[in-house]
Amino acid sequence: MIIILKSGIGDAAIDDVCRRVTEMGYAPHIIRGEFKTIVTVESVMPVQQPFKLASREVRPEPSEVRVNGISIGGQAIVVMAGPCSVESEAQVREVADAVKAAGAKILRGGAFKPRTSPYAFQGLKEQGLKYLADARKRTGLPVVTEVLETESVELVAQYADILQIGARNIQNFTLLRRVGEMGKPVLLKRGMATSIQEFLLSAEYILAAGNPNVILCERGIRTFETTTRFTLDLNAVPVLKKLSHLPVVVDPSHGTGHWDLVAPMAKGAVACGADGLIIEVHPNPEEALSDGPQSLKPSKFVQLMRELRPVAEAVGRSL
Amino acid sequence: MIIILKSGIGDAAIDDVCRRVTEMGYAPHIIRGEFKTIVTVESVMPVQQPFKLASREVRPEPSEVRVNGISIGGQAIVVMAGPCSVESEAQVREVADAVKAAGAKILRGGAFKPRTSPYAFQGLKEQGLKYLADARKRTGLPVVTEVLETESVELVAQYADILQIGARNIQNFTLLRRVGEMGKPVLLKRGMATSIQEFLLSAEYILAAGNPNVILCERGIRTFETTTRFTLDLNAVPVLKKLSHLPVVVDPSHGTGHWDLVAPMAKGAVACGADGLIIEVHPNPEEALSDGPQSLKPSKFVQLMRELRPVAEAVGRSL
Amino acid sequence: MIIILKSGIGDAAIDDVCRRVTEMGYAPHIIRGEFKTIVTVESVMPVQQPFKLASREVRPEPSEVRVNGISIGGQAIVVMAGPCSVESEAQVREVADAVKAAGAKILRGGAFKPRTSPYAFQGLKEQGLKYLADARKRTGLPVVTEVLETESVELVAQYADILQIGARNIQNFTLLRRVGEMGKPVLLKRGMATSIQEFLLSAEYILAAGNPNVILCERGIRTFETTTRFTLDLNAVPVLKKLSHLPVVVDPSHGTGHWDLVAPMAKGAVACGADGLIIEVHPNPEEALSDGPQSLKPSKFVQLMRELRPVAEAVGRSL
Amino acid sequence: MIIILKSGIGDAAIDDVCRRVTEMGYAPHIIRGEFKTIVTVESVMPVQQPFKLASREVRPEPSEVRVNGISIGGQAIVVMAGPCSVESEAQVREVADAVKAAGAKILRGGAFKPRTSPYAFQGLKEQGLKYLADARKRTGLPVVTEVLETESVELVAQYADILQIGARNIQNFTLLRRVGEMGKPVLLKRGMATSIQEFLLSAEYILAAGNPNVILCERGIRTFETTTRFTLDLNAVPVLKKLSHLPVVVDPSHGTGHWDLVAPMAKGAVACGADGLIIEVHPNPEEALSDGPQSLKPSKFVQLMRELRPVAEAVGRSL
Repeated sequence: MIIILKSGIGDAAIDDVCRRVTEMGYAPHIIRGEFKTIVTVESVMPVQQPFKLASREVRPEPSEVRVNGISIGGQAIVVMAGPCSVESEAQVREVADAVKAAGAKILRGGAFKPRTSPYAFQGLKEQGLKYLADARKRTGLPVVTEVLETESVELVAQYADILQIGARNIQNFTLLRRVGEMGKPVLLKRGMATSIQEFLLSAEYILAAGNPNVILCERGIRTFETTTRFTLDLNAVPVLKKLSHLPVVVDPSHGTGHWDLVAPMAKGAVACGADGLIIEVHPNPEEALSDGPQSLKPSKFVQLMRELRPVAEAVGRSL
Repeated sequence: MIIILKSGIGDAAIDDVCRRVTEMGYAPHIIRGEFKTIVTVESVMPVQQPFKLASREVRPEPSEVRVNGISIGGQAIVVMAGPCSVESEAQVREVADAVKAAGAKILRGGAFKPRTSPYAFQGLKEQGLKYLADARKRTGLPVVTEVLETESVELVAQYADILQIGARNIQNFTLLRRVGEMGKPVLLKRGMATSIQEFLLSAEYILAAGNPNVILCERGIRTFETTTRFTLDLNAVPVLKKLSHLPVVVDPSHGTGHWDLVAPMAKGAVACGADGLIIEVHPNPEEALSDGPQSLKPSKFVQLMRELRPVAEAVGRSL
Repeated sequence: MIIILKSGIGDAAIDDVCRRVTEMGYAPHIIRGEFKTIVTVESVMPVQQPFKLASREVRPEPSEVRVNGISIGGQAIVVMAGPCSVESEAQVREVADAVKAAGAKILRGGAFKPRTSPYAFQGLKEQGLKYLADARKRTGLPVVTEVLETESVELVAQYADILQIGARNIQNFTLLRRVGEMGKPVLLKRGMATSIQEFLLSAEYILAAGNPNVILCERGIRTFETTTRFTLDLNAVPVLKKLSHLPVVVDPSHGTGHWDLVAPMAKGAVACGADGLIIEVHPNPEEALSDGPQSLKPSKFVQLMRELRPVAEAVGRSL
Repeated sequence: MIIILKSGIGDAAIDDVCRRVTEMGYAPHIIRGEFKTIVTVESVMPVQQPFKLASREVRPEPSEVRVNGISIGGQAIVVMAGPCSVESEAQVREVADAVKAAGAKILRGGAFKPRTSPYAFQGLKEQGLKYLADARKRTGLPVVTEVLETESVELVAQYADILQIGARNIQNFTLLRRVGEMGKPVLLKRGMATSIQEFLLSAEYILAAGNPNVILCERGIRTFETTTRFTLDLNAVPVLKKLSHLPVVVDPSHGTGHWDLVAPMAKGAVACGADGLIIEVHPNPEEALSDGPQSLKPSKFVQLMRELRPVAEAVGRSL
């Protein structure tokens, strides 16, 4: 830690600073400049990253999160796909079949929906979870779905293979601890104003509760730009891979808010080092109950998967 | 709603758009330009604000929230003050006595603390609530304190007069609904990346659950600027007063992160129309367990209250 | 300067760092932690602020900029008012008479207009400057007007009493140096993404060219919020007053973009320590060639001046 | 254009709005809702993009900018590389040889440097331009270099093949017009707070002055995130390609500020559709007079070019 003292400060004040530092168990070093005086405090903690379990310093090799035989963070890029909201049994079934056929490895879909307005569709809740579980049975695809609140963690965990923590809950520390105690893999989405350091400290809450199976997800941050719904921050991918051993996936659907930006940003994400993607697919985006404008039709998703394969191979990965 | 069609679109496609709009129960109006065609959809909803109960359109006169005989949103500016975290019985007592003597009307203090790091001090929890209740008994000041999670809403409500929802929980919709059902006054803090519209929609969750006693609190948003911890957005005060009837208070302590900016920004807040302030006061800011750098010493708080009075009077309010 | 070395770095590498630091003329201090090693470099420069002439450290007492007997930065709050664009002789005359009668001390008006689109009205240019000079003759009010480019600095300086550098030119360093060489007072507007440090370094360009007459102007920064055109950052007022001796004025018209937010934010600015205001006034805002929505009608300006006076007095200033 | 009238507005006021719209030469359409009234104004202009010459609506096929036989915006990805600042003849020569050998097609280097501080190195100016011209002669690589001010446009144009407008001059409209009149290709860098629409309107200034040879360059925007120097906004690539026919290149060096993020973001840029890259290479980054931390050593640049090739091919491009 570095303490910069005001110019013209007296010796008594400097002594007082040093005394306090010593009381805290550290060794102060005084550096007197021509105009200012600095006290440096020898301390291991502030030099290391404030996150420990999430850090590359603690675990230099990358982590892999395994779910039903699929590894996230390994050599293969893992694509998770499905509708924003689960709307009906037929819808989930149709999408699940389509994304599986196209090569997706995990089925996504929201049963509990966090909505900005209290008057908007809030999800099918447990019925939606059942449709997802049926689709898993049918296709063999593991299911990732959001859990909104501590009260429903157990319920969601009965049906889901991966528990998703949404962007709005990134600093809901009680919920983070609870999913940490569950042990099931967690997909943790960065909040819209979450710094990289805060993101990793939120992951640390889950890890510190005993659950090492955390997947980080970049999904767009809030900036001044309005042509995109959020600003998908692909820089976060190499930054997170440098600071942490945890796998990183990217959500170009929420991150951009426009279906025609999903394919280019998905390719960009893979090229810059993402371990996976999470993509919204809907049979009739115009009639979706949420986030239609950013959803791909199944045919567009097939095309995207075809285009992604050579990009993955170009960076030494498979799809 | 306005639908702008791509240039060169054919009549069949325009008809299809109109048919779909009609099916949704609205009356489309087609406007053909030289290059583009627009379809306007006559609909009451999207023209009105998406928030209803929080809106000035629904209730033109300002709301007042009353707690123990104090009115927030009335003629008088209400100052809430106290430590960031409750740390000990003596600390709360000392601060409570001091802020009461200086003219504060409500005691603030955190017993459950949301902390970015899992390794930071998380608050004294129920013991902290007890110290706050003791200080209320001693001073007569009602207590505002944060509730972090649905599980502890009832517990906190036993001790607190106003339930605070912190910035990190602004879109924790389950928690919003729960404090909405409680009926007790709620101090709702804007999140660090929450737009004004989202802020009012979060208030709408509480109002729609049956609780009209919502106080809005501006506490700084996240921008590129780093000389302040956050960018306290005083523009939000007149904007919120224009759009909503709910009372608005300002937190210059969290909003700036520096104790020497608290007094000027507190005066600015009152001058631009705030109904109240929430200010951190600590007997020994250098030794505070959280947010020391932004806390005022009691003597500075006394001085601030003295300086605030003429500003309040200059804008037709009392203190 | 602090150099943090990677964990596990060898002695040879540490020696190499120290050798390089020594070559640069500084004295390195090595601090070995349990996991990491830090080298601190004793150097006066990086500890002080990077701006020198603009700094409070160099000049602790506030500066006053004087123009035609008016002092900006002194005890009195100085209000500058007038139209966004000069549109006609009659318009300038009408506004000049009105703002003078209401108590404004300086006339503002744009003759050279920086416009986002090449197809928008670009100002009356020299003709506009003449109308401003005529209005000065008539009312005695000194004139502040924007200079867009080095080529027209001399021309604008013939007519203007204060040269305004607009937000878009905050890092047009050639223009900053040129107005620095002129000696005339300069109103320097913060750019929409300019940090406080960059702002003061831009002022430093003018000061270092020999011109001490710099007035800083906060006019709104770009954030995610869209209910205001920009986010007027009133925090900048006390921050700038703390770091620098230069006078600070606030532009609530551009800063908010809405005429009905101008009065509350103007009062907020004065209460938090601004030395002046710059406000747009137009006889027919609905027909203004630029920025009509943020302009006050003369009658509203009269009312604002009346409301500002007690606020100024409440913070120990006059108007 | 859509005009939404306040609830409860009278017929006289509605008539007045319509009269004014008619006077402006447009046809108003009134839509009365249950609570509100909307007037839509049939007008070609506001429906189309405000930029015309830059727009895909005006020119659906992509533009190519040609310089010395190289096409930017064609099938091949074009890499521009070189030092941030020209520092010496030897430095430019060494870098030019190295980047040419590695496959770069254009040499970059700054002779006139825009520096935040007036006390920082401001570039070698004309001497630097001469070193660049020598390096072109030696290697055959065309040169791109920044022009800071209208006064030196002719001088820089004597030496440069592409004139670069830096981020700080994105709304220096006089300079934009001047390089528009020159006709030489222009590399236009997005400012750090420039919206996509403003970016294209700045390009429009150059195009409207008669110069069709504009290359757009994304180089990072300012956000709250501090682990990167700026937030390189790769979303801008597909958004610009959708709205405009102009070629788009990406600067991952300035955009991230860290050399170890350059390679992943360069690959991401190519994968999401960029037509080219501009990359800083320095023989001794630790001793660079500017931007050392973000510069690649020649050996790292060779490696990057090797890794980029398969990514370019994966998206149907060559390198």
